[in-house]
Parts: sequence; structure tokens; C-alpha cells
Amino acid sequence: MTRKVGVIGQGHVGETLANNLLVTGTVDELVLVDTDQKKLNANATDFEDAAANLPTHTHVVKNDYAALADADVVVIAVGNIGIQNDDAKHDRFMELKVTSRAAKEVGTKLKEVGFNGVVVSISNPCDVIAALFQKYTGLPQHQVIGTGTLLDTARLKKVVGQALDVDPRSVSGYALGEHGNSQFAAWSQVRVLGQNITDLAAASDQLDLDGLAEATKAGGYTVFHGKFYTNFGIAAAALCLVTAILNDAKIELPVSNFREEYGTYCGYPAVIGQQGVVKPLQLNLTAEEEKQLAASANYIKDRFDEVAKDLEE
Amino acid sequence: MTRKVGVIGQGHVGETLANNLLVTGTVDELVLVDTDQKKLNANATDFEDAAANLPTHTHVVKNDYAALADADVVVIAVGNIGIQNDDAKHDRFMELKVTSRAAKEVGTKLKEVGFNGVVVSISNPCDVIAALFQKYTGLPQHQVIGTGTLLDTARLKKVVGQALDVDPRSVSGYALGEHGNSQFAAWSQVRVLGQNITDLAAASDQLDLDGLAEATKAGGYTVFHGKFYTNFGIAAAALCLVTAILNDAKIELPVSNFREEYGTYCGYPAVIGQQGVVKPLQLNLTAEEEKQLAASANYIKDRFDEVAKDLEE
Amino acid sequence: MTRKVGVIGQGHVGETLANNLLVTGTVDELVLVDTDQKKLNANATDFEDAAANLPTHTHVVKNDYAALADADVVVIAVGNIGIQNDDAKHDRFMELKVTSRAAKEVGTKLKEVGFNGVVVSISNPCDVIAALFQKYTGLPQHQVIGTGTLLDTARLKKVVGQALDVDPRSVSGYALGEHGNSQFAAWSQVRVLGQNITDLAAASDQLDLDGLAEATKAGGYTVFHGKFYTNFGIAAAALCLVTAILNDAKIELPVSNFREEYGTYCGYPAVIGQQGVVKPLQLNLTAEEEKQLAASANYIKDRFDEVAKDLEE
Amino acid sequence: MTRKVGVIGQGHVGETLANNLLVTGTVDELVLVDTDQKKLNANATDFEDAAANLPTHTHVVKNDYAALADADVVVIAVGNIGIQNDDAKHDRFMELKVTSRAAKEVGTKLKEVGFNGVVVSISNPCDVIAALFQKYTGLPQHQVIGTGTLLDTARLKKVVGQALDVDPRSVSGYALGEHGNSQFAAWSQVRVLGQNITDLAAASDQLDLDGLAEATKAGGYTVFHGKFYTNFGIAAAALCLVTAILNDAKIELPVSNFREEYGTYCGYPAVIGQQGVVKPLQLNLTAEEEKQLAASANYIKDRFDEVAKDLEE
Repeated sequence: MTRKVGVIGQGHVGETLANNLLVTGTVDELVLVDTDQKKLNANATDFEDAAANLPTHTHVVKNDYAALADADVVVIAVGNIGIQNDDAKHDRFMELKVTSRAAKEVGTKLKEVGFNGVVVSISNPCDVIAALFQKYTGLPQHQVIGTGTLLDTARLKKVVGQALDVDPRSVSGYALGEHGNSQFAAWSQVRVLGQNITDLAAASDQLDLDGLAEATKAGGYTVFHGKFYTNFGIAAAALCLVTAILNDAKIELPVSNFREEYGTYCGYPAVIGQQGVVKPLQLNLTAEEEKQLAASANYIKDRFDEVAKDLEE
Repeated sequence: MTRKVGVIGQGHVGETLANNLLVTGTVDELVLVDTDQKKLNANATDFEDAAANLPTHTHVVKNDYAALADADVVVIAVGNIGIQNDDAKHDRFMELKVTSRAAKEVGTKLKEVGFNGVVVSISNPCDVIAALFQKYTGLPQHQVIGTGTLLDTARLKKVVGQALDVDPRSVSGYALGEHGNSQFAAWSQVRVLGQNITDLAAASDQLDLDGLAEATKAGGYTVFHGKFYTNFGIAAAALCLVTAILNDAKIELPVSNFREEYGTYCGYPAVIGQQGVVKPLQLNLTAEEEKQLAASANYIKDRFDEVAKDLEE
Repeated sequence: MTRKVGVIGQGHVGETLANNLLVTGTVDELVLVDTDQKKLNANATDFEDAAANLPTHTHVVKNDYAALADADVVVIAVGNIGIQNDDAKHDRFMELKVTSRAAKEVGTKLKEVGFNGVVVSISNPCDVIAALFQKYTGLPQHQVIGTGTLLDTARLKKVVGQALDVDPRSVSGYALGEHGNSQFAAWSQVRVLGQNITDLAAASDQLDLDGLAEATKAGGYTVFHGKFYTNFGIAAAALCLVTAILNDAKIELPVSNFREEYGTYCGYPAVIGQQGVVKPLQLNLTAEEEKQLAASANYIKDRFDEVAKDLEE
Repeated sequence: MTRKVGVIGQGHVGETLANNLLVTGTVDELVLVDTDQKKLNANATDFEDAAANLPTHTHVVKNDYAALADADVVVIAVGNIGIQNDDAKHDRFMELKVTSRAAKEVGTKLKEVGFNGVVVSISNPCDVIAALFQKYTGLPQHQVIGTGTLLDTARLKKVVGQALDVDPRSVSGYALGEHGNSQFAAWSQVRVLGQNITDLAAASDQLDLDGLAEATKAGGYTVFHGKFYTNFGIAAAALCLVTAILNDAKIELPVSNFREEYGTYCGYPAVIGQQGVVKPLQLNLTAEEEKQLAASANYIKDRFDEVAKDLEE
């Protein structure tokens, strides 16, 4: 067992990530945790039923916090509160109350078993929950990461790629800020086809950056309103992030990490390795982008302060 | 687009298989089809949101039967009728009425667009539905395969492996017959640790073959009653089967294929390649196993005759 | 056999690429060609001896030009003239005479069998030989690609990554021009850690771009003088390029492709898909870089004109 | 760095295995060791030049025995004595004198740094050298494995597969004994197409087991006499074995392991996991096969005794 990963939460996202880790042979030992014992057993058994038809072996461990003590990475995807309808008022902060309590409980348990690897938090509202995990696990800030705008950035690259008929992997740049309504495309950082996208847009009637920003958000709505959850996009993002940590890859990824200048977690690129965030980046944003980012960061900070106070009571 | 696969049906199984194909980079073009346009769009968008974080590129095509005409493989996972409760009377034939009509419709459409690759049918009751697809696509029998007892065999290998502490991939042998209640472990064919398992069992108080057969079935119940569907085990089985076809691998796999001696599809090992079933196997079963298999095959045949007649009306 | 690739030339580079394609399960059918029948048989047998221990199946075909007719990609790595010593005067144009005749012969044969996929040429001098393959296969320019500065770019990303302790994959930018002595790092295009590298260098005493450019070249010498050939770096580059073509990925890669403004093949980024070069890029280079590129391109063009004339006689 | 593997010896086999480990993303940290510093630097640099074009990251460490202390697996492929001609008298024991001294030196160094993982020895004569590594590392017998007849078994499966047009992975069975001239196909254990191969052969004029045994050996000669070394087949075997150890897979593999009944290492299937050999197998061989195996084992034992005495002087 040389690559050991835990996945806490076996909802749509957690189970899809666990499947990705197994099918790609990325991990040697996979610890699955959920409070719903029947669902946990069902998934663990289903994964074991996959083993004979896969090229590599993964040892699956069920619901054992002690087994997480020496894990390299623990991914947390708790807080699926079972939304099954198209409630127009739903946003990620609806989930906050339930998920924040789960975060306190899970974080405390991880601290108790002495976990000292990297936490990757997916649960929404992503930035606030990542900050809660840092607080309750007591781990250094660099060892707790939220997936943050890694998914938003993938969506941004997708819409730019579709507009210009290139692979999303050939689009560089980032969505920044809260993984939520206040995230935004930092167009000043987006490059494609060897050009700044702002130059391409200035020279073309076809390339409408506001339209692309809209399309980025619309994609999320298409997924959510079509099935009331998202899983494949976020699970691929998490697979990429977990692999970077296991490899000690030191690649740049836009994730939710603690930014000193705002005093909060928020989506901003960082260099990711075995220790989590191994180096912060510093982008040359436009004044307008700085303003947007500060507003988004402040929004996260306020929500965190509220919920942290709530949890103390 | 050099490896082209279609997946019809975007329920739990179809979507998990589609994700497996993307995450492993197995296909170049993936055509997704579902009658629920919202769900289809949601999944296709979710898969496109994964692209920027995956190492390989897969072109996703939405709901286009014409695009299936030149596919290498079309996997069919239709007929999820949305069972969401733990109805004790549920078995795979409950789904027959709905799924058989879907099979007729899908098979007819595949014929209309001129599809001439290999059909892999997952929908339950697997053997009957595979036979219906053969009928309605008009494809030669060897080009239509059901996943059949490939999953049951994986479960059998799992329980044997767990009992003897070896990897399921180091257990050889098969579950035969109907992918359903009448499937059975053909113990005469099972080898592990360099021995026939019947010899090991004869020499050991610990190894109880009846108990293992029970455990194989119990695993399936654990999954089903824990979440009301199974997806990861069957999707891994289908990934293995699709890859074998794309590779023209000519590996032995226990799948649902037409057996002349019974005049029906049933789970029995065959050599699988680009043309589907490229060679049948002929096992030396015990008289008792032959009897069990005949009974299981007859059960399938009777159900097929009933439903085929029903569909003609 | 749905992904079909040919590799012509079973020297250090061709055989390592073939191994990469097998070990990663990237291709379904692999056609190996070499004029040395004993070496070809040895490698093909050695690859077949690997099959039982690999997770996927690849059908290996030996020395059959006719089998290349319907290949998706043919990679050409001919012209290894067996340099086994550390001759100080060796450069890539030493190989030109031998390799250009081989290129004429191979290109003509590919035309005769009606090959209409994409040629990926690795043989050195890369840009000249790629141009010869285009001439003798008669394929459209976009269907003939040289690996060009894809390897030089990987080396550039490596030294930048080492200097700043980030993964080479998180460095963007290109080495341009001839895959040879006149290639150069286009620093104006290099970005890392969210910054233009020229800005980072201006602000730091530690980051010496000239030194990095030297180190890029020195790495190539370390490899060449340490073993008298290079194979692993270039074979990984070719694997990436072949996969992009098979996937129809439309990713940006700095390869040798025909540039109208210079009237020659040279290393310059382009969007790569199933048809080869599917879109050219246009970089905003500095005046100095434009000059360097023009000089490098002219050098290639002159060599091509010489050798093309030579081959006509 | 969670999966850490060392490869000692950067000849044809060691470098091909290292490349396989990188290209497949199997390891996080790869320690390369060779006494030829120039070749070592050349290969390490060449591997680093591959990094930008590969999907995963591997940290390459050069010539550092201390870095092997906490490796999971150390693969040893020393003793390439540079045979470059077709000397008819060549057999694996020609290499014994040189390689045995290297084994003593390398084994002693591994002991000094406190290595306590699993040794996988490839160097020939494989069984004798594996035994020497066990002696000089002082590791328990189960932690030292030779690749043994894993390659011979792959060749056996290949020729059987070719004869019957099935994938080698669908042939079960083993070549046993010395990885050398006295290895033999244990036909009583070979199963294919659901049958014992001896039954198939008895029923068919086409299937000549002696001819297949000859063909198995002839394949090795084709490779050796065509290029004077073998690398791709053995490197794929080693990749499979290393992955099984890293995964703690507990799969059956025919490797060189210490067999009590003969008091020596020899090729015989065993269950392989993180601790090396985790369980021996016990085959029901025919009396004739038992005799062949005993003779082969005795041959290994005698050679080991000779060389061990020699090394003491």
C-alpha cells in the first residue's frame, strides 16, 4: 500500500472520484467513509465487484477513520443533502448549515486519528468548508486545499476552446474567487492560440468575452438543472488534483487556498505538490479584476466568520 | 476519431461506463444517446467540463443516431425504470416489459442507420434483451453480445479471492447461465492457487463452496439493497469487454452469447474480438452443471419467446 | 483494429516509440517496418513476448507496407546511421545524405500503397526530412508533420521548471525554428507562475535566461555524448503527438510544419488534430525573435533545396 | 513521493523498465543507479526531457544509494557485459562471473543503506543471481524475487495463443525451473479455451506440444540473435511484477523464488504482494515434470554453490 487515499462522503461526487481512482489504477489503498452504512457497503461491494475486470489492484477499506491516519490524501465530499428538485432558490449556501456541521465533525475526527497528509475538500460552499477543515483538523493552511475554481476554470477553458475550436487543455488562464456565484474569468490571464484572449477579442467580431463568461455559468446550470447534481466534471478535477499531490508534481492549479492578502481561502492558482500548496502564485490582474476578487474573497470571509461563530455556539 | 463507441442510455450504468471510457482515454469519439434530453445534456456537459483536467481528449456527440452508423461498438444500457425503493419482489424480469419495448425501438433505429459494428447489451434481463437486440438490429448473432455473467463471474472470483487471500484476477473460472437468479458457479471449471477449487475444498474444512456461491449472490443484494441499483462493477465489466473488442484482443470472457445447443443467448465463455464473438468455447462441465445450465438456458428461451411474441402484437 | 499506427525504422527512437505505444495501450494495430529484417523480427518478437504481461492487446504486423495503406498515422524514424562514437564534428546534417535517400524511398512507397493518413517524421535533420516526406508522399502539407522543436520545447520547459521548482507542464512557451543548432527559446512567449518569464527575470538576480538557453542545449549534449543517441525524450514527444492525432485532440504543439511566410517547414506551434495541422498559430514575437526565426527557417530552406536537387539527379 | 522504485543498472533492460515506469505513470519517485556515470546522466536527462510531454510526473534521482533506503522496490538489472556479437557459445552462464561480483557489491550496498523493501532481480543467470542478492542483502527470502520464468511463461502463452488464435492472456499455465536452457513448459498446468491443453492436443492433429515448446525457445533466439539482447519482453514482465508489489495485489506470477523442497531459488508460481512472495503455490505436476523441475533446480543450486564459494575467496 504505497499510495493511500481516503474519500469521505459517498454521494455522487465522492463515489465518482473513488471510481476514477480505481479505474485508472491511481491508488493502492482506498479508504471509503460515509455515515450511511448501507450506501457505504453497497458502494464498497460494487467496487470490489469491479476488481476482476480491471488491470490493477486497489485495496478497498470500509468506514475506518483509523485507517486514514497514514493516508497521503483525504478527499472530503460530504454534505449531499439530497436535493432532488429544481428549486430556483437553490444555491451553494443552502447547503452550508448541514455541511458545516459535518465539516466540524469530520475535521475533528481526522485530527483525533493524527492525519497529517493533505486534505482536498470538495464540499460546497467550497471555500468556506475548506477553511473549516483547516480549522478543525488543525493542519497547516498549505495542507488543506479546496477544489475551488478548478472546475470553473475547466468550464472556462471548455467554452473558450469551443469558440475557437481548440482543445480546452490548450487554453491557459483561470477563473478566480469563490467557487460560486461571485467567481469570474480573469480574462487578462487567458491565453489561447499564442495570444492573449483580450487581443483576439479586440480584433474579432466573433469573440464575445461576456458571452463566454455567461456560457461558462450556463454550463453549470445545464448540468445542475438536468440532473440536480454535478459529478463527472468535478470528479475529473479532483482526480487531477489528487494525482498531482501523490506525484509531488508541483503543477499550477487554480484551487481554493489561503491567501494572506484577503485573510481567507479563495480560488487562486498555486503550485501543488506532496505537501499541498508548495508555492503561491502572484498574478498581475487588472484593477477591475482585483476589485472583483477582493469582493468575492470578502464574501467568502464573511460567510466563514458567520458559520464559524455559529459552530462555536 | 479512430475509436468510436456509442452508449445508449444515460442511467447509472450507461453514464458510469461513459465516464470510464473518458477517464481512461479509451475512445476518441463517444456518442451519448438518451430519450431524456435534459439528462443527456446534463451528462454531456458534465463530461465536457471534465476535459481540461484529463490527459486525453474524447469528442462527445449528443443524441445523434446517425453518428452511430460507423461506430465500432454500441453499448446499450436502456430500461432503467427508476426503481427507488427496496421492493422485495423486485427481480430483473420486472424490468422486462419496459425494456423490451425500448430494445425493439433502439434496435430498429440502429438497423435504420446501418450500424454494422458490435452491440454490447447491458440492459436486464440481460440474455433476453441481448437476443431482442440481435433480432431487431438484424446483425449476425456473433455481433451482438450481452454482458451476461461477466459480472457474476467477477463476483465469484471476488469471493473466492477473499476466501483464499488472492487477487480475483488470479482466480479462473466462470459463472454460467442467465444473468439472474438461475446463474450458477461452475465449480468444475474454477482454478486458483494452481489447483482445481474442488480439490482444495475436498482437502479443507475452511473452504465451503456452497457458502461461496451464497456469498456471490449476497454481494449483489448488498449493492442493490444499499443503493437500489448497481453501476461500478457492471461498468468495469463493460469497459473490459469494449476494450477487448476495440483491441481485437481475442480474450476469453464469459458473456451472453448465442449457444446453438440451447437455441438461445446465455452466459458462457467465448473468445471476443473486433467482430464480437470470434470463437465459442466448449467446457467439460459435470452432468449436474450441464443440467443447471440447460435449465437456466430454457428459462431464458421461454422468456424470450414470450416477450418476442408480445412485441409482435 | 480501430487505432492503427505504423512505425518505420526500428532504431533507438522507433523501437522506443513502438514500446511506448504498446505499454500504454494506445494502439490496436502496430505495423513495424525496417530494412534490417533480423532486427525487425527481433523487435517484433520481443514485443509479442511482452503481450501476456500487459493489460491491453496490440496486434503487431511485420514489415508490410501494404498494411500501412489504412493506418491513421505513420511515424518515420529512419536514418540511424549507427554513430557509435563521440565525434566532435557530428551534427544532425551529417545524417542528411543517408537519411534523405531513405526518405525518398520510404515516401515513394507510402504513396504507392495509397497511404492517406498523417505522417509524423522524427528523422534528422527533422525539418528538411519532413519536407522531403511531404514531397515524396504527395500528401497535403498539413498531413505531414515533423516532431521539430517539440523536444527542444520540452527541454526548455524542463530547465525553466528546474530553475523555479515547478513542473515542466506548468511552463508554457516554445522553442522555435530548426530542430538543430539554430533553434532558440522564444522568451517573449514563455510564461510560468502566472508571469511572463521576461518580467520574472527582470525582477530577479537568480533567473538568467541566457543561462537557461545554454542549459537547454547542454542537456541535449549530455544525452548525446553519454550514449550517442537520444530516445526517451523524443519518444515521449512522439507519443504525445501521435495520441493527439488519434484523439483528434486539437491541442497546440510546437512541431515542424509548413509555414507560408518562410516557404518551408520549421518548428512553430500549430493546432494538431486528426488531419494533422488543423490550424496554424501566429505569435507576436519580438523583432529580434522574428529575425532569429527567419534565419533559422532560411537555413532549413537552403538545405532542403540542396538535398532536393541532389535527390533529383 | 508515495510510490518509490529504484532501478540499478541502466543497460537495455534497466533503461527500458525505467521508461515503462515513467510512461505509464506508475511511480512517483524513480532512483536510477549505474556505475557508468556518463550513461546514467544521459538516461536521467533523457527521461527528464520526456516529462513535459507525459501526463504524470515522476521525480528522477540519480545514482544515490542512500535514496534507496526507503524505496518500495529495487529492481536490479546489472551485469550487461556488452555482448555485441552472435557468439554461438553464448549462454546465460557466460555472464555469471561478472554479474556475481556486481551482485555481491550491489547487495552489500543495499544492506548498508538499510533497504527493507522488495528486491526484483532480472540479471542473468536469474535464479543464481537472485539467490546471491538474498544472501548479500540479508533480506528474508520472501523479499527477494527473480523475474525467473515470468518471461518464459509469457513466451509460452504467446506461442499457444498464436497456435489457437487467442490472446496470450487467455492462456493459463507456467514455464518452470531455471530461467535458462533447462526451463520447461509444464503442460499439465496449461489451460486454454476452457480445456487442458493436453486434452486439446490429444484430440487434434494440429496441436503439437513439442513443437510449441520448441517455438517458445526459438522466439528467445530470434530476439537474441537479431539484436544481441532482449529488453521489451522482460521489461513488460518486470513492469507487471513491480506493479503487483506496489499494489499489494496478491496475484499469482511464475517468478524465481526460494523453494524449500529444492533448497534453492527457481521459477515456480507464487502469490506476489507488498512483502514480495506472500504465499507459495503447490502444483500437481506429473512425475515427469517433477523430475524435470528437480533437475533444473539442482542445476541452479550447484551453480549457486560454486559461485557463492568463489565469491567468498
